[in-house]
Amino acid sequence: MDHSLSTLFQARYGAAAPEAAIPSNAVLEALLSHRSVRAFLPDALPEGALETLVAAGQSASTSSNLQAWSVVAVEDPGRRARLAELSGRQGFVAKAPLFLCFIADTSRLRRLGERHGQPMEGLDYLEAFIVAAVDAALAAQNVVVAAESLGLGTVYIGALRNKPEEVGQELGLPPGAMALFGLCVGRPDPAAPAQIKPRLPQATVLHRERYDASAEAAAVEDYDTTLAGFSAAQGIGAQGWVGRMLKRVGTAADLHGRDAMKATLRRMGFPLR
Amino acid sequence: MDHSLSTLFQARYGAAAPEAAIPSNAVLEALLSHRSVRAFLPDALPEGALETLVAAGQSASTSSNLQAWSVVAVEDPGRRARLAELSGRQGFVAKAPLFLCFIADTSRLRRLGERHGQPMEGLDYLEAFIVAAVDAALAAQNVVVAAESLGLGTVYIGALRNKPEEVGQELGLPPGAMALFGLCVGRPDPAAPAQIKPRLPQATVLHRERYDASAEAAAVEDYDTTLAGFSAAQGIGAQGWVGRMLKRVGTAADLHGRDAMKATLRRMGFPLR
Repeated sequence: MDHSLSTLFQARYGAAAPEAAIPSNAVLEALLSHRSVRAFLPDALPEGALETLVAAGQSASTSSNLQAWSVVAVEDPGRRARLAELSGRQGFVAKAPLFLCFIADTSRLRRLGERHGQPMEGLDYLEAFIVAAVDAALAAQNVVVAAESLGLGTVYIGALRNKPEEVGQELGLPPGAMALFGLCVGRPDPAAPAQIKPRLPQATVLHRERYDASAEAAAVEDYDTTLAGFSAAQGIGAQGWVGRMLKRVGTAADLHGRDAMKATLRRMGFPLR
Repeated sequence: MDHSLSTLFQARYGAAAPEAAIPSNAVLEALLSHRSVRAFLPDALPEGALETLVAAGQSASTSSNLQAWSVVAVEDPGRRARLAELSGRQGFVAKAPLFLCFIADTSRLRRLGERHGQPMEGLDYLEAFIVAAVDAALAAQNVVVAAESLGLGTVYIGALRNKPEEVGQELGLPPGAMALFGLCVGRPDPAAPAQIKPRLPQATVLHRERYDASAEAAAVEDYDTTLAGFSAAQGIGAQGWVGRMLKRVGTAADLHGRDAMKATLRRMGFPLR
């Protein structure tokens, strides 16, 4: 496979690819080569891989060094199957040998406050949940990049938010801790290779100095065609981006129970003031 | 510099470092070597660097391919200075040649819905803000890793959330778009080299099968000592982790105005139902 930047830009943007104007390197090629994997071999991870992934995650930045995240590594097949069931019955969740549950975690700071007689009022606010969610996401993305460098494949499971309380019970989470998303990790099944998915044209996402959506409508139409072609080639139907988006967030019912998130989080120890 | 994994684990965890049990590679070493840079040379970025960084960001996963994020690239010195002023007067924000504002962006999907006569009700919920924030964070972390591979340094600026409406006006953000954090990007000033910051012991963050905080208190005390030693060596005072945390989230006043985030976001077009 040709891993040059311009080839990778083509795969990511199709005809709308920007010019690859700078010298490439192994890290850039790794990042640009990302694709989500949904078919895994059952092989366990190599010894020491999990610790290395978590070290990569902890090497990401964290807001004010609060480190308001945790990860629960699930390998037990029964628990993986139960979490798959709680995550919209996505079968591959049970098949990946390792399922990492990334936790937006203010509970560690709560416990610290309790030991030091400090109420930690700052954790009562929506801002604290934002910090915890961003911390967890930054760490998780480093874990993904590290996993791919080891020849492993990954896919994020946002559906772990469909039933946060049930997931919390399964994982024994304390108040102030919530599973934000899961991550399947395992060796990709070579019989079902994943491809690089095209994204919106760069000009739609990147703005210079000030936000400018004036050319957006036409660019989105182009992307709709690009994605429909990609999907057809993958044998997953020829629907483009627009139809999928209208269906995904068109109504509250499309949220699969996540429209109750605010009340759920409050019950789970995030006051969200 | 010795970039072997075990050396990097030592720098990240001090005496509590896990054993480096797997073969290293260039990507792992890049991830583990991360440090935040707060002193920049004024040199502009190489031609094509910004497009490459954004391509790396867009290569990150995104929830259901919603791509609910944008980035505003600010190079204009006057605008950088105004954003530095809005971000708690952190002087280095104005000094980095490029300031990337990462936007939690539901507005693109709103506009899509408007063009297709679909109310996009799903965007009215807290869940949509979570999706946008996680999408933005995953993309941003890829940008950081890509930037470091080009010899650039970065630092996240969470203080961009201190005054979200003023920042939104400066960047011309539409309703449903909010600057989640900033990222300074530039060539590190070799006169002020940054060091790898120690993190909590891995056992405090990584849980197996179920969440277990039983050994946490002792591990946190150890970390407090490690971080105090690191800070003293950096000449930034000998305060450990515990004191900093109690001060950072102890009271609502410590949030620097971010205790008003919920009402602010609602005014900015995130109903957060």
